[in-house]
Amino acid sequence: MSERHQEFQSLLKSNAEAVETLLAALLSGDMQTDEIARPERLLAAMRHGVLNGGKRLRPFLVIESAALFPNVERDTALRIGAALECIHCYSLVHDDLPAMDDDDLRRGQPTVHIAFDEAAAILAGDSLLTLAFDIVAAPETRLPDATKTALVLALARAAGIGGMAGGQALDLAAEKQAPDTDGIVTLQAMKTGALLRFACEAGAIIAGAPENERATLRRYGETVGLAFQIADDLLDLTADAQTMGKATGKDADRGKATLVSRRGQAWAESRLQALVKEAEALLAPFSHRAGILIETAHFIANRRN
Amino acid sequence: MSERHQEFQSLLKSNAEAVETLLAALLSGDMQTDEIARPERLLAAMRHGVLNGGKRLRPFLVIESAALFPNVERDTALRIGAALECIHCYSLVHDDLPAMDDDDLRRGQPTVHIAFDEAAAILAGDSLLTLAFDIVAAPETRLPDATKTALVLALARAAGIGGMAGGQALDLAAEKQAPDTDGIVTLQAMKTGALLRFACEAGAIIAGAPENERATLRRYGETVGLAFQIADDLLDLTADAQTMGKATGKDADRGKATLVSRRGQAWAESRLQALVKEAEALLAPFSHRAGILIETAHFIANRRN
Repeated sequence: MSERHQEFQSLLKSNAEAVETLLAALLSGDMQTDEIARPERLLAAMRHGVLNGGKRLRPFLVIESAALFPNVERDTALRIGAALECIHCYSLVHDDLPAMDDDDLRRGQPTVHIAFDEAAAILAGDSLLTLAFDIVAAPETRLPDATKTALVLALARAAGIGGMAGGQALDLAAEKQAPDTDGIVTLQAMKTGALLRFACEAGAIIAGAPENERATLRRYGETVGLAFQIADDLLDLTADAQTMGKATGKDADRGKATLVSRRGQAWAESRLQALVKEAEALLAPFSHRAGILIETAHFIANRRN
Repeated sequence: MSERHQEFQSLLKSNAEAVETLLAALLSGDMQTDEIARPERLLAAMRHGVLNGGKRLRPFLVIESAALFPNVERDTALRIGAALECIHCYSLVHDDLPAMDDDDLRRGQPTVHIAFDEAAAILAGDSLLTLAFDIVAAPETRLPDATKTALVLALARAAGIGGMAGGQALDLAAEKQAPDTDGIVTLQAMKTGALLRFACEAGAIIAGAPENERATLRRYGETVGLAFQIADDLLDLTADAQTMGKATGKDADRGKATLVSRRGQAWAESRLQALVKEAEALLAPFSHRAGILIETAHFIANRRN
């Protein structure tokens, strides 16, 4: 393992620990202003769905895209990252439900509806989604109100019918009728792409950066989003369940079409390398400050679990 | 029917129509900035869950509490009311699911998971919850960013684990183990009270009113919230399914304790009248401008469906 790669892994790990610590605090029994009670079992279900030692890639992207700009407090970016992670985790909790993807296992642990019950999983997801907007708007998030409004709007658009939730609807429909290639591209841009794009754009929003830099980070986010999805589909095709900590080969079992299953492994590997080059080119204006985000693109394209 | 009562009913109706029109526009096929696609079937499920001719009591409270203040545009209050209604409707869609209250019928129509399927109902609820925050933050909502931030925070707290979602968790738990009287009060304050309180407080937030007026409208909201719940429990005990357009007597069937089942119909009726008096007293500082909100308290306490 190269030194640069080791440094990256250690940064990923320290960020993930900071995210985990903040999320644990946000999901403690401490009530916030205006809250009437925090029912224990629901709180436990939320914690189960969130505090599971994930890689915290989305918060990492928020924190490191914000770190491109000298005026951003790291703790502030961390809070926005934690809000985004609440949305990501809620989507996993709901997607795992029997009526959706029906998964019993995630990261080697029972999913929320298995560890608790379906009602608890539905409500834990709902509460995590709601908490995300709470975190952005809360006074502890030290950002101008105009920035908070922009973040709420961008996050809602990324997560809602026009983004992630709509993508999950398309994904379920795809099991019944296989989409064409354009359909797969739209589905993936929504289901996984929208949150990853938000994660990268969020850095520029938090910094109050000019529109051209915001657009650049959006495009970087779209590029790593595409890479993430191709790497994921490739892993589903080639990895085994033990490495992944979850069921694999499920796409094929369900006859679910992916770009990788349509075009093959060689195409996927070459496309991944092209996307990494594209991400590097996009980040050129940020010169040496972009080192970590470039490394991130490599990591996303080459990850093996 | 008194003339005043007729005027009130006609105002309730015209507000509900305005809310319905706005919600239909927000749930049209027109994509918003940053949205990638609006999958048709999911959109149809969202519309089914929202555009069902409800009384729109919560938006009414937002609009009429905002109308206490001369500086508020009615259209702006309407948008916040519509956002709140999205939250209310999402909660009904999720509460009706088989894993929760398992209801097939709402307002005489099949519930979303019956008309579509469970996955669509879960995703429609998720998307409506997300849309609520989108509406508040969107540029079409002409409010200062500080006001939007305050609304997002108050709405999230009212809807999340410390409010409505937490209340639903307690309600499900109550079917297994009957809570004591304090437990019932907390459950109801969360499950239905929190959104009603927000609805009334929202008028003052939208207006940028001073803290004492905000506190007054909060207390008014708590008071009509209590009245709403007692009237609801009373109706469940006494009304028939045809008048209600939904199953009744369900609380008793489930052995679910309410304050009304514990203390009886006479207590409930006298308590309702006391709450109306309390609401009137709270609104005294707004003098003649408070006529509609006073009428609303009477309406909530005396409703028969």
